[in-house]
Amino acid sequence: MQKTIFILNGPNLNLLGVREPEIYGSETLEDIKKRCIERAARYGLNVDFRQTNFEGVLVESVHEAREKAAAIIINPAGLSFNSIPVLDSLKMFDGPKFEVHISNIHQREPHYHRSLVSLTATGVIAGFGSDGYVLSIEAVANRISATARTGS
Amino acid sequence: MQKTIFILNGPNLNLLGVREPEIYGSETLEDIKKRCIERAARYGLNVDFRQTNFEGVLVESVHEAREKAAAIIINPAGLSFNSIPVLDSLKMFDGPKFEVHISNIHQREPHYHRSLVSLTATGVIAGFGSDGYVLSIEAVANRISATARTGS
Amino acid sequence: MQKTIFILNGPNLNLLGVREPEIYGSETLEDIKKRCIERAARYGLNVDFRQTNFEGVLVESVHEAREKAAAIIINPAGLSFNSIPVLDSLKMFDGPKFEVHISNIHQREPHYHRSLVSLTATGVIAGFGSDGYVLSIEAVANRISATARTGS
Amino acid sequence: MQKTIFILNGPNLNLLGVREPEIYGSETLEDIKKRCIERAARYGLNVDFRQTNFEGVLVESVHEAREKAAAIIINPAGLSFNSIPVLDSLKMFDGPKFEVHISNIHQREPHYHRSLVSLTATGVIAGFGSDGYVLSIEAVANRISATARTGS
Amino acid sequence: MQKTIFILNGPNLNLLGVREPEIYGSETLEDIKKRCIERAARYGLNVDFRQTNFEGVLVESVHEAREKAAAIIINPAGLSFNSIPVLDSLKMFDGPKFEVHISNIHQREPHYHRSLVSLTATGVIAGFGSDGYVLSIEAVANRISATARTGS
Amino acid sequence: MQKTIFILNGPNLNLLGVREPEIYGSETLEDIKKRCIERAARYGLNVDFRQTNFEGVLVESVHEAREKAAAIIINPAGLSFNSIPVLDSLKMFDGPKFEVHISNIHQREPHYHRSLVSLTATGVIAGFGSDGYVLSIEAVANRISATARTGS
Amino acid sequence: MQKTIFILNGPNLNLLGVREPEIYGSETLEDIKKRCIERAARYGLNVDFRQTNFEGVLVESVHEAREKAAAIIINPAGLSFNSIPVLDSLKMFDGPKFEVHISNIHQREPHYHRSLVSLTATGVIAGFGSDGYVLSIEAVANRISATARTGS
Amino acid sequence: MQKTIFILNGPNLNLLGVREPEIYGSETLEDIKKRCIERAARYGLNVDFRQTNFEGVLVESVHEAREKAAAIIINPAGLSFNSIPVLDSLKMFDGPKFEVHISNIHQREPHYHRSLVSLTATGVIAGFGSDGYVLSIEAVANRISATARTGS
Amino acid sequence: MQKTIFILNGPNLNLLGVREPEIYGSETLEDIKKRCIERAARYGLNVDFRQTNFEGVLVESVHEAREKAAAIIINPAGLSFNSIPVLDSLKMFDGPKFEVHISNIHQREPHYHRSLVSLTATGVIAGFGSDGYVLSIEAVANRISATARTGS
Amino acid sequence: MQKTIFILNGPNLNLLGVREPEIYGSETLEDIKKRCIERAARYGLNVDFRQTNFEGVLVESVHEAREKAAAIIINPAGLSFNSIPVLDSLKMFDGPKFEVHISNIHQREPHYHRSLVSLTATGVIAGFGSDGYVLSIEAVANRISATARTGS
Amino acid sequence: MQKTIFILNGPNLNLLGVREPEIYGSETLEDIKKRCIERAARYGLNVDFRQTNFEGVLVESVHEAREKAAAIIINPAGLSFNSIPVLDSLKMFDGPKFEVHISNIHQREPHYHRSLVSLTATGVIAGFGSDGYVLSIEAVANRISATARTGS
Amino acid sequence: MQKTIFILNGPNLNLLGVREPEIYGSETLEDIKKRCIERAARYGLNVDFRQTNFEGVLVESVHEAREKAAAIIINPAGLSFNSIPVLDSLKMFDGPKFEVHISNIHQREPHYHRSLVSLTATGVIAGFGSDGYVLSIEAVANRISATARTGS
Repeated sequence: MQKTIFILNGPNLNLLGVREPEIYGSETLEDIKKRCIERAARYGLNVDFRQTNFEGVLVESVHEAREKAAAIIINPAGLSFNSIPVLDSLKMFDGPKFEVHISNIHQREPHYHRSLVSLTATGVIAGFGSDGYVLSIEAVANRISATARTGS
Repeated sequence: MQKTIFILNGPNLNLLGVREPEIYGSETLEDIKKRCIERAARYGLNVDFRQTNFEGVLVESVHEAREKAAAIIINPAGLSFNSIPVLDSLKMFDGPKFEVHISNIHQREPHYHRSLVSLTATGVIAGFGSDGYVLSIEAVANRISATARTGS
Repeated sequence: MQKTIFILNGPNLNLLGVREPEIYGSETLEDIKKRCIERAARYGLNVDFRQTNFEGVLVESVHEAREKAAAIIINPAGLSFNSIPVLDSLKMFDGPKFEVHISNIHQREPHYHRSLVSLTATGVIAGFGSDGYVLSIEAVANRISATARTGS
Repeated sequence: MQKTIFILNGPNLNLLGVREPEIYGSETLEDIKKRCIERAARYGLNVDFRQTNFEGVLVESVHEAREKAAAIIINPAGLSFNSIPVLDSLKMFDGPKFEVHISNIHQREPHYHRSLVSLTATGVIAGFGSDGYVLSIEAVANRISATARTGS
Repeated sequence: MQKTIFILNGPNLNLLGVREPEIYGSETLEDIKKRCIERAARYGLNVDFRQTNFEGVLVESVHEAREKAAAIIINPAGLSFNSIPVLDSLKMFDGPKFEVHISNIHQREPHYHRSLVSLTATGVIAGFGSDGYVLSIEAVANRISATARTGS
Repeated sequence: MQKTIFILNGPNLNLLGVREPEIYGSETLEDIKKRCIERAARYGLNVDFRQTNFEGVLVESVHEAREKAAAIIINPAGLSFNSIPVLDSLKMFDGPKFEVHISNIHQREPHYHRSLVSLTATGVIAGFGSDGYVLSIEAVANRISATARTGS
Repeated sequence: MQKTIFILNGPNLNLLGVREPEIYGSETLEDIKKRCIERAARYGLNVDFRQTNFEGVLVESVHEAREKAAAIIINPAGLSFNSIPVLDSLKMFDGPKFEVHISNIHQREPHYHRSLVSLTATGVIAGFGSDGYVLSIEAVANRISATARTGS
Repeated sequence: MQKTIFILNGPNLNLLGVREPEIYGSETLEDIKKRCIERAARYGLNVDFRQTNFEGVLVESVHEAREKAAAIIINPAGLSFNSIPVLDSLKMFDGPKFEVHISNIHQREPHYHRSLVSLTATGVIAGFGSDGYVLSIEAVANRISATARTGS
Repeated sequence: MQKTIFILNGPNLNLLGVREPEIYGSETLEDIKKRCIERAARYGLNVDFRQTNFEGVLVESVHEAREKAAAIIINPAGLSFNSIPVLDSLKMFDGPKFEVHISNIHQREPHYHRSLVSLTATGVIAGFGSDGYVLSIEAVANRISATARTGS
Repeated sequence: MQKTIFILNGPNLNLLGVREPEIYGSETLEDIKKRCIERAARYGLNVDFRQTNFEGVLVESVHEAREKAAAIIINPAGLSFNSIPVLDSLKMFDGPKFEVHISNIHQREPHYHRSLVSLTATGVIAGFGSDGYVLSIEAVANRISATARTGS
Repeated sequence: MQKTIFILNGPNLNLLGVREPEIYGSETLEDIKKRCIERAARYGLNVDFRQTNFEGVLVESVHEAREKAAAIIINPAGLSFNSIPVLDSLKMFDGPKFEVHISNIHQREPHYHRSLVSLTATGVIAGFGSDGYVLSIEAVANRISATARTGS
Repeated sequence: MQKTIFILNGPNLNLLGVREPEIYGSETLEDIKKRCIERAARYGLNVDFRQTNFEGVLVESVHEAREKAAAIIINPAGLSFNSIPVLDSLKMFDGPKFEVHISNIHQREPHYHRSLVSLTATGVIAGFGSDGYVLSIEAVANRISATARTGS
């Protein structure tokens, strides 16, 4: 059976590509979803791609991932910096979990500098644009196949 | 066609006038809504007046305002101080956006001092009681009529 | 008529006992609920026991408690530390309100040290495991019976 | 006899409209004075409109207001942030006192973020441009007429 | 042979009930001692109840507890916040150790917020009044009987 | 020839006794001046007693004291906390200089806690009410007579 | 019957006059005691003058003062800055309580800047040398006689 | 002509794979170099792979990259956090520059949290192990081919 | 017509050379004025040299410079560190503006370390003694002649 | 006559070797005392070796050392970090004074990082285990013999 | 024999004039060197002008200056802010030492605000562009000739 | 075969004894080297004694020590406080590593207070002058012989 990656997107990302295209580019979240599905397919992986503006929904998606997903890729957006519920939920997920930020958050205002989610993420990628998603899929694929090989 | 102002109210404001009337006065949120509708009507403006206890609902109302509203007046209440999702959503709204606090937040405990929303609001009014809402409508009306006159 | 205690549980507590049983023990939230109902029954008190992953739901449960509950026992979990809406809602509840943390939060990372909810709670109990809930019920019972005796 | 509002302006505001009109607009302090007088007249109120570059003069104007004014509207400008003498003088004024900032100070450099005057002002309005003055007059008028009605 | 709980009280608690009874209630430390002895007796436990105004005496009581006590309940009072010797002594006690504060210290001035003793206490209870002592005895009894049952 | 003490009073002290007499007492600055003159006379000392709301005037009075005064007693009021010009002027005065605060500034808000003037004052007295002035005159008299005796 | 002032001295003050006489002068604590007794006698007041190097003794002297003393003059020395037990004990003393420091602590290293005792002292005097003691006796005498006159 | 990527490694990375293999894995810097060369070759890109323990050498390699490299991938290791010379040199490089950390630095001690290099890097990837290098090559390849296509 | 440089001196500088000549040298402000006039004359420049102890006067001199001066050289002395009015006035001056401190402020106490004026000054020179003034005139002359040459 | 070294040990050190031998080793304070006496004897030095859990006793031992000891070696343990009385007493001791910590305090929690005693100690040695004591005796011996040689 | 000034330049300054000429101007370090040599020649002074990207080289040049140079002019660039070795080396140089920054560092990001080198430099000049170098030569010349005249 | 101790000295220590002999004494680094070699010889240990002004050289010496040394004694001088590369290199050395500072760094300016190297050093000795080196050799010898005896 094919393994699944949960790709979870936080608040305001539904407007990606629509707002300020001169900054964020014209790529929409739907476009990113397609790129992710294609890339995952190369490795025989499914993608469950979601977006929500609700902290509670994000938390419950992570709970659901405990049952259904081999890995989580998460762009918590504005919930990265102050949401301890999201942090706590991710602590309970044992598989690989990668945190993605489209822009380089370290170059923004101070309240965007310190992600709480990074305290539990396996890895963090920021400023690679939407490439951050597909590169994280690569990393998931590497890890899953490595695990498969070693049986550990 | 008449222009619309979204007037958005954050958590706990549904209890305004009910709780501690000796402090906050006996005016309810419903009373404020009426004052807002009347005042806006003087300038030929509609009001869409909402309250929510959910960050996600507030974020989505701001998204909706991008399509439907000429201006936003927002009292984010307890979400003013830590909610980066609300801040991020308001950054995407291009029209005038005024932040209202009924009390003078600068005289409260330190965690009420620094509103994140103020980092993107056009203007901030605090401590004017419910007048803050109607005065913000005045400010919106001034700006809209000015724009109308100059065509810019 | 029997008085009711609202026992409110915040994000991720639905997974209690399931995750990391070697740390948190194998007791589930359902087990705690049973212990609470039994202990409250000794004093002729009802229990309305809830869990939510949504800040907004927690806020509205507190609002509801204003009408229906003689006391609140709350484990705000990850919402303890940054949620001003939860703090604000509890400020409006006049009865006894006890804050429970299963672990001793003061021994965890710095972002778990300072609960905003403690600024309004009648009392705080942390690190007593699930005993914190039933001991809080004891405290509620003491206070209610004291009030009953004095009629104040 | 007509009541008087003292409208006090701090350092550098004498150059308003002259400097950087592309930022601050071409409205001068004299223009604002006229708008204030007209608006106050609607409510049968006098305006005593002053500007000074001296902390001591501002302090003494506030002292004078204790004898002559029903309300103070103050734009302390650069004296907002460090002047304890101005703060102390305003603490001694019992009537309504509104603080006005033309720009939204919260979006400027950190040393403009925290107004000491806000610690005693009835209300604060920032970022509404020169509208901040006339809206404050509205608020004064509301309060004075309310007081008149109730006789308190 | 009966097990013993050391109940240790820090500086100024000898005046409990005498000073400011309108705030702290009229219950004296002697009253609390009686309640503790009665409650412990229910579980076949002895109580060794002490008060001192000396840091050194408190440290040495903790040392003594290593030999004689199955558990410690401590209200370090003013020594909670800066006394590293008390903290260090408690680190050497392996049994359950509960920290009690009569008032909710989190609502007091900042120098009462952060108890060093909490860094080693099994659990902390604050703001439950003198109930904090007897509820801690309950918690001790639960743990001792649990240990007895499992033999661990 | 008689020696002179400059007694310098900063902003808002001209209203002493007039404002909030229930807090500050009904003693006016004029009353304090009289007490000072009487007390100084006991020791054959003159008093030059001044009040100003201007930092510049305070600085220049200190300059003048370099020529005319054997000692300075200063209540810098609101200029205590941020005025480096006042601090710098006092650094240039070689005789005894005592700083007086009528209230105990350490019990007020944080911006009243740290007096810059204390960095150069010989001594500081706060919270003794108007006694602070006359006790400082005592201290000056002691020092001057001591100097006279030893000829140093 | 004559009223008594407790004059309490903290750690290391027993060596006053012995150590570093070029800095602290050659006056010993015994000399200060004599000056205090003489000065108090002028006003018909007794002095109970003590020194201790133990926090616990200082706390218990303050407790004793609740029974026996009309006022406290305290030089807490090294216990001023970190001792919450001393602070707490003084909070329970209702009469006038003056804090004395021989040197101007504000000109020393940072850990001598902020006295906790000042948070409850009626008044604080620092840098007046041993005059600080006798001037505090003057202040006590003023207050006691004022109270006697008004009978309040 | 083939484009070149400079891959620059900072202090102590020469010991990768040798030290603590149970933590960092047994992969050496030489292994990573090989993976990088292979991956770059897929896109027709050369790799110039270097390691140094000297800040000055790292700075001069960045200078050299201005002439010879289309992109920089840098793992500044211990120079990430305090080296302003490295930051300044990278500011002068106009092409894409990606910062790689093998471990997730946000989970280490505080002095590893805030990379100065992130203030100028195009993107940052941490905690992906040695995958961080090859994923950065992917990102470089994407950007170079995109530029080639658009000619911009 | 000859261009003019305003050379503005803040509080206490009128006493230069008089006070502590062993530290600051025996050069008076009058001496510096002469050196400045001579040096400026070499370049055909006038000097308007002023000193004030009043923040308001300094602000108004800067305003006047907008009309009359080609450049400002300012030694704000004690007003450098806290005066936002002086900072704001200088922001409105478009020509070159150099800040001079006679001593190296970075080697003094912390409250002298961070000049607000430096946030708007073209350049800052500190610790060069009175040379700082004449070297700033050199810099002004270079800039004015450069401008003259290029006509920009 | 033989010179004496006071070796003073603070709170909880009486339990050394007893508690957590797997961490601190099984060496007791008595063992260290023996090693110290032996080592000192090599240099013809006496040792007066003490331990106390009381700050006041430690202070008075330092006072006593002024009369009787040529040097102090002190392990203030938990009193290192907050005890200003201990710091003050040591400031009054003119001979060599070495501070010993058995563990490397810089690797412990933040409240163990900054010893106040280090502000006056001649030297500090931490993390050398009980060797710290005997090495300090070596250092004392070196200094005393050097002094003996030079007669200074 | 002619005296020599060491003019030392830190990391990245070798690229001056090459990078971002629209900001830093097109003047190269070679151009500055020529201006320095010419200006020094006016006063009969030699210049030894160096640039390095290595902290160690900078430290050793300062050591060398102890033997060979009458003065140091140093632009430590990126080593200004964190390099204690450079600071320490300069502390050992007794002659005049001037610190130059081409831009006004106080207007840049916070990590450029506080130069460690300023803690030992005789004077600091920032924001004067390359004039900072030649003006520092003027200052050196003044001091050397003054010394020559007085023979001190 | 004889074991070797690497004794590594950081920037500016080559000038020891030459500079400020009235402070640091006239002992040179060469003298210390001799004392170290002699003392080590007593225990049959070799010494490899080095000094460098380059961080990179220090890092590589630590790397080399991994192959060749049984212990490291390091005086990182100015590299103690900010150099993460030196810290990281030392973390990789498994044997005993002692940090030496000639002066008591805790009594110097704040930027000398917190050594990063102490976070990994076995022990730290400061303020013992050059004795710190030889006492560290003693400690190394103790540990090596202890290890030899136990075979662990």
